[in-house]
Amino acid sequence: MANDLEISRAATLQPITDVARSAGIPEDALELYGRYKAKVNPALVPRRAERGKVVLVTAMSPTPAGEGKSTVTVGLGDALARAGQKTVIALREPSLGPVLGMKGGATGGGYSQVIPMEEINLHFTGDFHAITSANNALAALVDNHIFQGNELGIDPRRITFRRVMDMNDRSLRHIVVGLGGPGQGTVREDGFDITVASEIMAVFCLATDIEDLTSRLARITVGYTWDRKPVTVADLRVQGALALLLKDALKPNLVQTIAGTPALVHGGPFANIAHGCNSVIATSLGRDLADVVVTEAGFGADLGAEKYMDITSRVADVAPDAVVVVATVRALKMHGGVPRERLDEPNLAGLEAGTANLRRHVRNLGKFGFSPVVAINRFTTDTPEEVEWLLGWCSQEGVDAAVADVWAQGGGGPGGDDLAAKVLAALKRNVDFQPLYPLQMGVAEKIRTVVREIYGADDVEFSVPALRRLEEIEANGWENVPVCMAKTQYSFSDDAAKLGAPEGFTIHVRDLVPKTGAGFIVALTGAVMTMPGLPKQPAALRMGVAADGTPSGLF
Amino acid sequence: MANDLEISRAATLQPITDVARSAGIPEDALELYGRYKAKVNPALVPRRAERGKVVLVTAMSPTPAGEGKSTVTVGLGDALARAGQKTVIALREPSLGPVLGMKGGATGGGYSQVIPMEEINLHFTGDFHAITSANNALAALVDNHIFQGNELGIDPRRITFRRVMDMNDRSLRHIVVGLGGPGQGTVREDGFDITVASEIMAVFCLATDIEDLTSRLARITVGYTWDRKPVTVADLRVQGALALLLKDALKPNLVQTIAGTPALVHGGPFANIAHGCNSVIATSLGRDLADVVVTEAGFGADLGAEKYMDITSRVADVAPDAVVVVATVRALKMHGGVPRERLDEPNLAGLEAGTANLRRHVRNLGKFGFSPVVAINRFTTDTPEEVEWLLGWCSQEGVDAAVADVWAQGGGGPGGDDLAAKVLAALKRNVDFQPLYPLQMGVAEKIRTVVREIYGADDVEFSVPALRRLEEIEANGWENVPVCMAKTQYSFSDDAAKLGAPEGFTIHVRDLVPKTGAGFIVALTGAVMTMPGLPKQPAALRMGVAADGTPSGLF
Repeated sequence: MANDLEISRAATLQPITDVARSAGIPEDALELYGRYKAKVNPALVPRRAERGKVVLVTAMSPTPAGEGKSTVTVGLGDALARAGQKTVIALREPSLGPVLGMKGGATGGGYSQVIPMEEINLHFTGDFHAITSANNALAALVDNHIFQGNELGIDPRRITFRRVMDMNDRSLRHIVVGLGGPGQGTVREDGFDITVASEIMAVFCLATDIEDLTSRLARITVGYTWDRKPVTVADLRVQGALALLLKDALKPNLVQTIAGTPALVHGGPFANIAHGCNSVIATSLGRDLADVVVTEAGFGADLGAEKYMDITSRVADVAPDAVVVVATVRALKMHGGVPRERLDEPNLAGLEAGTANLRRHVRNLGKFGFSPVVAINRFTTDTPEEVEWLLGWCSQEGVDAAVADVWAQGGGGPGGDDLAAKVLAALKRNVDFQPLYPLQMGVAEKIRTVVREIYGADDVEFSVPALRRLEEIEANGWENVPVCMAKTQYSFSDDAAKLGAPEGFTIHVRDLVPKTGAGFIVALTGAVMTMPGLPKQPAALRMGVAADGTPSGLF
Repeated sequence: MANDLEISRAATLQPITDVARSAGIPEDALELYGRYKAKVNPALVPRRAERGKVVLVTAMSPTPAGEGKSTVTVGLGDALARAGQKTVIALREPSLGPVLGMKGGATGGGYSQVIPMEEINLHFTGDFHAITSANNALAALVDNHIFQGNELGIDPRRITFRRVMDMNDRSLRHIVVGLGGPGQGTVREDGFDITVASEIMAVFCLATDIEDLTSRLARITVGYTWDRKPVTVADLRVQGALALLLKDALKPNLVQTIAGTPALVHGGPFANIAHGCNSVIATSLGRDLADVVVTEAGFGADLGAEKYMDITSRVADVAPDAVVVVATVRALKMHGGVPRERLDEPNLAGLEAGTANLRRHVRNLGKFGFSPVVAINRFTTDTPEEVEWLLGWCSQEGVDAAVADVWAQGGGGPGGDDLAAKVLAALKRNVDFQPLYPLQMGVAEKIRTVVREIYGADDVEFSVPALRRLEEIEANGWENVPVCMAKTQYSFSDDAAKLGAPEGFTIHVRDLVPKTGAGFIVALTGAVMTMPGLPKQPAALRMGVAADGTPSGLF
């Protein structure tokens, strides 16, 4: 069996200039990065009178291995192209930390990948490096401001803006900086997050153009003064320098799928700590290039899709026209109580028990106005009986469903035809999209609404620090923005062990973090981490490069 | 008066494909990065039977503002091209930290610049980001190894490999990592250097190809075990992953000067802490493309040129065929005792007194076999009398000299003609190049040789820790490599205040750092810093970007 890197390398790559031409991108809008990657300047792409429709791919609560959401997104895009639709795929960029740690790669899988996978997985066009640089330039400028006299009166104990690195490095979670004497700065507690958890990443993905980016950067709160007034980037007068560091990165990246479908891979915030979807600039550009844009929201629908509806769709004209929920026989069995080491064995009873999880996700999407299409992402271990049973269950529930055999067949083959047909039918239906809550609602009430309506919790409980933060948020007039829930992706609850569709639980908000640049308030629940660690056997151990430059170990 | 960014933007850029064609680079060796930057795969460029000659540009001891060494390098390259020589310029890449801090840009100046300057100064093709990632991946893998059971028995108190960031951030010089409890790693002292001070940067610039890079990476010492045995990257088995992270960065970057001369801008180690010149891969590639390669060594000739001769020229076939020493009327006056705020006033007596500095540099270069050409880099404040006097002094000393008016006129104009003629004459002379010392000499003796022969010191004094380190170096069999002196660039001594040509002083070596991957031993003298800080008014404060993407404030 070929691995993802081998499949990717065996694929025939079209010159990216050809992909761009077929996508209708004017030549002067294209900036080449090697032969198979390019950046696209959206300002030089003409607006379409009838803009393309948006298909959002989300998923049921995942297993730790993931349910192949990116694979289905790529496969569905290819299948729609095969069905004669002008299609563009919009995906997040992979983060280097997890690539070196657990995953080895994050560009879809099997025959449904975006390529060249090794370049997309390693550095790509440098966007994450630019975001890391802008983040850390700001952090250095804050500490330097204090060192050089602290005109603004920043309280070093109340700096909230942390440094970042695109790496899994647990040793940097909690650090002390500025040691070594008065010439080396001010001693204070600090820490690094992974780059995808940076507010600059969120700002980058929500900005509609360079001016909007600059304004959002200016609004970022970096900390508080000795008398508890917020200090922003605008106070430091460095939003221009940060925007300058991001100006090229802000242009979406064009690559292709193995089947040759154009893909915009751009931005990549974590879906647990931020809103978790690719840049709105890329999705918006896709709507000017194609009839259909297929995009993906991170983690399960309780996290990624909810945020897509309540955060992303409010800042730009990218609201979904149809929603696909990826489900797998394996994940359903896991939610049905089957132990992880027995997921490869046929188990209809477990499968049936697990449907409670999928049902809740499907019903939740109804609250935003959607009748989603369930995509059953086929794994080689699925039995025909299990797949048939699941199709039957969907039909009984009145839910559209299709098997997606895109990992093995590729969307360029017939494996995604059924799903594409169901999605095209869904796109013909009228959708009355609406976010879950109005922005004018109080912050605690917004959180309570998400927790009750989407998670199925009885209520939310705020810690003492979170309650104090609520008061500060009101005092600063920051309450009229969406909430961004930071929660485990494995459960509807904030306890990763509560599988299926748990009932009678409470969500514990341990802290609230106002992200005044991104324009949302993060509610931290449970033990969500903003800097992952490496495993005992990191993927890096198997990686290498031959004398001719051929990479190995990325799979 | 136009600033550097305005001059750069007003220049006519040729498509980089045209520049590559005129340089004789085969089309399949070229990887475009936008319209005006490209990477060149040296493996796809044919070897020349008669390889180009190498002109090394160095300088007298500089003022804090610098003597325009890059400007003269670019101007001389342009002038050689204007004189009908097939010429390639090889330069270091700018570091983002100083760009945001003091300098605003580092790509030459006036009409002798490499362009597009804003792209070269900001991210460029991402090489420094790749080096930062490789460095920090290694650091994370070391801490993770300890966290996951520490099979190799690494002593957390004796980890010598530090993290890096391409930023001026003094708060990160001395930090404590791993705080927060047993799940967050092991508490230990650590710190960040600026990326250009990373051993990975030195390895990158000295590697002759990807296999040599991998071997050098494998040999890097990251720390010591509990029983004081060195631990290398090979022990951690991650040289393959690090090489993979660097494989694209290792291809030299092609840009152009304002006059259209091809320039390879690649790699950029600090000349105080490392060997301080661009990658040997780039210089070597230049020798296969052109009759003359003009390259630059960092800081004054006591640092950059000495290291070019004793380190760089030993690892690859890039020994200089001629040497240019940049001198300025301003710097000579400063070394002659004129206070900094009066350097703009005519002062022949000060000028004369300052020649002692230049004389020592010229004589030093003779010890390597060279009769250098002095390039008088004209500043607008220089009087005709001062310049004439200086030319006369050079003639009296028997030193070739020429005025380089390349900042104002550009090397494309006649401002560099005289210098080019002198350099071409120098290239016709026979050179008996030799390094200063043989590798078999003991480490202390090598250091003593450099400080006596080049700096003019009476002797060297080793601190107690340095003496202990000398024993360790011998015990580990690491002594047969060159030494890499880390010293202030402002003085021949280790005291920045001792200007001119000081006598009767001692050099204090406070520590020795074996860089087993780069293949040299760093001798730290005085108070050399490996992580700069930002000034009170960082250049970042004036930077910005317009709605159409036009940058401002980079000058």
